[in-house]
Amino acid sequence: MAATIRIAVLGASGYTGADLVRLALTHPGVEIRALAASQSAGKAMADVWPHMRIYPNLPPLLRAEDMPWDEIDAVFGCLPHAASAELLAQIDPRIRIIDLSADFRLDDEHIYAEWYGVAHPAPALMQQAVYGLTELARDSLPEARLVACPGCYPTAALLALLPVARAGLVKPANITINALSGVTGAGRSLKQSNLFAEIAEATAPYGLGHHRHMPEMEQELAKAFGQPLRISFTPHLLPMNRGELATITVELGAGATIGQLRACLVECYADAPFVHVLPEGVAPATRMVRGSNHVVINVFADRIAGRAIIVSAIDNLVKGSSGQALQNFNLMFGLPEDQGLQAAPLFP
Amino acid sequence: MAATIRIAVLGASGYTGADLVRLALTHPGVEIRALAASQSAGKAMADVWPHMRIYPNLPPLLRAEDMPWDEIDAVFGCLPHAASAELLAQIDPRIRIIDLSADFRLDDEHIYAEWYGVAHPAPALMQQAVYGLTELARDSLPEARLVACPGCYPTAALLALLPVARAGLVKPANITINALSGVTGAGRSLKQSNLFAEIAEATAPYGLGHHRHMPEMEQELAKAFGQPLRISFTPHLLPMNRGELATITVELGAGATIGQLRACLVECYADAPFVHVLPEGVAPATRMVRGSNHVVINVFADRIAGRAIIVSAIDNLVKGSSGQALQNFNLMFGLPEDQGLQAAPLFP
Amino acid sequence: MAATIRIAVLGASGYTGADLVRLALTHPGVEIRALAASQSAGKAMADVWPHMRIYPNLPPLLRAEDMPWDEIDAVFGCLPHAASAELLAQIDPRIRIIDLSADFRLDDEHIYAEWYGVAHPAPALMQQAVYGLTELARDSLPEARLVACPGCYPTAALLALLPVARAGLVKPANITINALSGVTGAGRSLKQSNLFAEIAEATAPYGLGHHRHMPEMEQELAKAFGQPLRISFTPHLLPMNRGELATITVELGAGATIGQLRACLVECYADAPFVHVLPEGVAPATRMVRGSNHVVINVFADRIAGRAIIVSAIDNLVKGSSGQALQNFNLMFGLPEDQGLQAAPLFP
Amino acid sequence: MAATIRIAVLGASGYTGADLVRLALTHPGVEIRALAASQSAGKAMADVWPHMRIYPNLPPLLRAEDMPWDEIDAVFGCLPHAASAELLAQIDPRIRIIDLSADFRLDDEHIYAEWYGVAHPAPALMQQAVYGLTELARDSLPEARLVACPGCYPTAALLALLPVARAGLVKPANITINALSGVTGAGRSLKQSNLFAEIAEATAPYGLGHHRHMPEMEQELAKAFGQPLRISFTPHLLPMNRGELATITVELGAGATIGQLRACLVECYADAPFVHVLPEGVAPATRMVRGSNHVVINVFADRIAGRAIIVSAIDNLVKGSSGQALQNFNLMFGLPEDQGLQAAPLFP
Repeated sequence: MAATIRIAVLGASGYTGADLVRLALTHPGVEIRALAASQSAGKAMADVWPHMRIYPNLPPLLRAEDMPWDEIDAVFGCLPHAASAELLAQIDPRIRIIDLSADFRLDDEHIYAEWYGVAHPAPALMQQAVYGLTELARDSLPEARLVACPGCYPTAALLALLPVARAGLVKPANITINALSGVTGAGRSLKQSNLFAEIAEATAPYGLGHHRHMPEMEQELAKAFGQPLRISFTPHLLPMNRGELATITVELGAGATIGQLRACLVECYADAPFVHVLPEGVAPATRMVRGSNHVVINVFADRIAGRAIIVSAIDNLVKGSSGQALQNFNLMFGLPEDQGLQAAPLFP
Repeated sequence: MAATIRIAVLGASGYTGADLVRLALTHPGVEIRALAASQSAGKAMADVWPHMRIYPNLPPLLRAEDMPWDEIDAVFGCLPHAASAELLAQIDPRIRIIDLSADFRLDDEHIYAEWYGVAHPAPALMQQAVYGLTELARDSLPEARLVACPGCYPTAALLALLPVARAGLVKPANITINALSGVTGAGRSLKQSNLFAEIAEATAPYGLGHHRHMPEMEQELAKAFGQPLRISFTPHLLPMNRGELATITVELGAGATIGQLRACLVECYADAPFVHVLPEGVAPATRMVRGSNHVVINVFADRIAGRAIIVSAIDNLVKGSSGQALQNFNLMFGLPEDQGLQAAPLFP
Repeated sequence: MAATIRIAVLGASGYTGADLVRLALTHPGVEIRALAASQSAGKAMADVWPHMRIYPNLPPLLRAEDMPWDEIDAVFGCLPHAASAELLAQIDPRIRIIDLSADFRLDDEHIYAEWYGVAHPAPALMQQAVYGLTELARDSLPEARLVACPGCYPTAALLALLPVARAGLVKPANITINALSGVTGAGRSLKQSNLFAEIAEATAPYGLGHHRHMPEMEQELAKAFGQPLRISFTPHLLPMNRGELATITVELGAGATIGQLRACLVECYADAPFVHVLPEGVAPATRMVRGSNHVVINVFADRIAGRAIIVSAIDNLVKGSSGQALQNFNLMFGLPEDQGLQAAPLFP
Repeated sequence: MAATIRIAVLGASGYTGADLVRLALTHPGVEIRALAASQSAGKAMADVWPHMRIYPNLPPLLRAEDMPWDEIDAVFGCLPHAASAELLAQIDPRIRIIDLSADFRLDDEHIYAEWYGVAHPAPALMQQAVYGLTELARDSLPEARLVACPGCYPTAALLALLPVARAGLVKPANITINALSGVTGAGRSLKQSNLFAEIAEATAPYGLGHHRHMPEMEQELAKAFGQPLRISFTPHLLPMNRGELATITVELGAGATIGQLRACLVECYADAPFVHVLPEGVAPATRMVRGSNHVVINVFADRIAGRAIIVSAIDNLVKGSSGQALQNFNLMFGLPEDQGLQAAPLFP
């Protein structure tokens, strides 16, 4: 049996950090060697997370500066943007990085500065990053030192769009993405808008006309189409913990049909263990994938002639974040793609 | 003091029927004279509804054929489509009708037959109906014998779209309506898909490319634009009881601006007690109107140039159904528009 | 028509303050003259509360020291304990006070100091307070200057227990109160334990063996029994916004029967517009009273011989807080008991 | 590697059946050979369950009479009571049975008839059954042919009570169990009371004074105490999918202390991989164990002298049903106790 890979998780007091630990706990090839969480340093995971109560033997939470970098083979970065790049730029190049922040997703530091409001802390490192939408980045992962995991919305949207964009089956004009997300997407920060009583029994859109996942989606779509484009994207917050659904209206390419779009996606994901194009007519639902790394996608005719509706659903914390990070890690280290990720979705 | 108007509610065992009764209970100009619910006939409202436990003196549930029509001035129809028209066609023309079913919303019986799968039971009566989107039908209501209350999705979407369509500020092409609804919109029927455990913690779209509210919206928009059109409409079911939100992307008319759209809506609803165009930049949310007859609307620039996003939120059971019915009733009978509807939204 | 009474609400940025405003908005005898909320001073209610968006003309939020006390007839105190007494002790004795904090519920300042960890800021004022469990304090309210509204748990428990305790139908020993509450009971403060993702899909008890509502319940029960006693009380937090349910096991007094307990409660509340003893066998549920000032109670035989289970349900923000405050206000000022409180429960 | 054990699941269209399949899918020692669900026979699991969409290769649903019993080593019975015993009495004695119904939990067929309203269909088989509260039945499982898995409430309550009862640390008198359960405990049947809109945002007790889990708990407690007893048990339905919490008040045995109770439980479960006595003062919460087979327990002093409060939390579908069944199966077949059950709890 192969030696286990020693991992560290930075930002283990956030939802994505905790979900990374949850999944890594049952990954046979991984040893959770160290955990960092600056504001909770000194505490145990059991004190910070209810579902970690039963794991009293996890490593304690450290300050980032106290991490035993010598004993780490791979680090998962679950820190806020800017903080992530600043820290990761300083660690030993021997250590491979799977970053879940926004810091290494964009190719262009100027666009980063424009959307994130700060100069990029590590522009050189930015250039080394592989954009880790796993299914469409598979070849680049084994050699990558630094993988930037996509945002949750881009994961749901791009898995649905990139194959048909590359195949010329849809037009770059007027791509309209409506997305619905569970509240864990907003993080664990103490904001009034995250309180139970403010969220339950209600919904609303946010980031109307301007959301940080826009440039990331436009960047990848531009590569697929071979031309720059602008998309419409409107996310909504829903009264549920997990789950993300993208409902995307597109204009069909000349002569393209709904059947061709479905066939293109079926073929593209034929060997992908986590992406499932549903039988014709079956609508994707977040309950199909809750708690798992799976993705469900389907294509429908729009009532407006010449248009299609593509729908995809993920768990925002798993395929939209920590699960995809682990999937990328597996491919970086030559492990089976689904290791640590085999648990079936949890329903109800 | 004016004599009270004696009302009957048909279908009092459904969510819209019950919400009608809930509102009518505090309407000073109304006497709830009779209630019908075929399958629950013989029971008390207190046995059928938890929140009616405290009103043991409401009239008992009757079969429709046992209703004391002689003692009724106005009837609220909360029955399923087809059943509604069949019954209402038989009652005394003296009795004024506010129908909440789909039976009298469409102008064309052929389109009705196509979408509802049955021949219309009362095509002559169909022609007398006023389409009761209250704010835009105010002049026709005082004389109307039969008012057809709009569907919940059309209410949210058309209040946002009709004024700007009439003003030529948006184009009829590519109107894309994404809508989110609480589960009461699916009714109280015993379907697996309505069970708590199937709905909670999840979301999904339904009726993709084909939903019965489409022809209704297209009919009213065609009148506003002066030409036929097709719209894109995708509803989603959310894990909440009440609330409905429409996120609509439109193409701006030649030379039109976001500011003009907002101004047009502000002006149109200046005297409407229930429709509120929010301050610039504030996103409508269903929590703003829960349990009330109010509507909140706003307009935003889309990231794609030349397009706008219009968002509106209602309570699907109140403004989207029973509240608007009562509002129509008030105007039909010359009562203050907001009588019985003054209660503030319930939050949290 | 009588002149309206000019009210002020202190703490209008909290859930109880907002629910007071919500109810007062439709109270015909009330003018909302001033609102205070120190941390949000300068803002409009519309900026602080989603459901107040549609009321742009409410008075602005002031600092407590800027309140126009000269123009106020009655003040509703919705402040945290200690802060409430400190402020209320300073206002003109002409102004009548309905306090929703814990500051004036206890008779004994030493017990207050023991449970709340601070010396009482206004012990003299404490002695003037009437304990405002409305149905059992009716005679004292018209003359009261200061009414202390009970805690939400004491309201649910004492309405069920006091009549049967006074009648000697239950014993003081081993009264065990298990209670369930929606999260608004925990307030709007920014605590991790109040976040949606921490609360949804889960439950837990809190305050085990030690909760501040204990001395309040023991004080009132001791008066009813004519002897001191200790009770068992365990509250649980539930994933819902509103609603509170108390399930109470008691030992029957010598010779007492379940039927006698029910009859005693029926008789006690025969003329109470808001308290309903349900038909035999019907279990109280919070959905029966949501959003309203109503209370539902019932009595059941326990499987252990000689014991009974009494269950009562309220909306914690209405009868458990702001609604009862308004009910007390009505009786203090000689208004109809249910004014501003007639809206039916909201279900679903 | 050992040969896999071929299992069948009867009642795969119910929540417990589906959760059994969910867990078995990742159990390395198990082959899911056959699935039965009479009313859904002929359908695929993917058509009956949203989260099974991604497993199109599961065996199809059969009628019970079409099961390939020759190819089955062990059967999990997830049928309703009476139906379960009737069917299981007919299968080859070679096949080992893990039954999740109520049919084999009671020792006495007369008590069964009294509480379940039917004569027991297989009284002889009843006598062979081992009561499978795993941690307290470990020695009997390897040789058992038929294991009766406890009800969900008894699992939560008895794990907390039996050790301290056996040790004489608590008295048999006045044991009062208040329990809270997610709605999956009510099954997937089409009842109005299971609809989302009836359950969300509300709670209520049910089965007051009379619930079928009472005789089961009394039977096992009577064995522990060495004398018959009656308990008080009041379950409540909560607006959440999964999770069950028991809050139990007990009278301490002569001279017993809270510390002794805790120590007794700590010692009893020292080697149990799934049962965790929490650190002093930490309240059990269902979020600590959601989706997992784990149990968290703790003991607190009651405010009434001489009494304790014991709290335990489980996932009603896992430790309360399918997980415990699989845990029993593992011990019956000499497999590691936690095989197929290692996944960490899912939070949020």
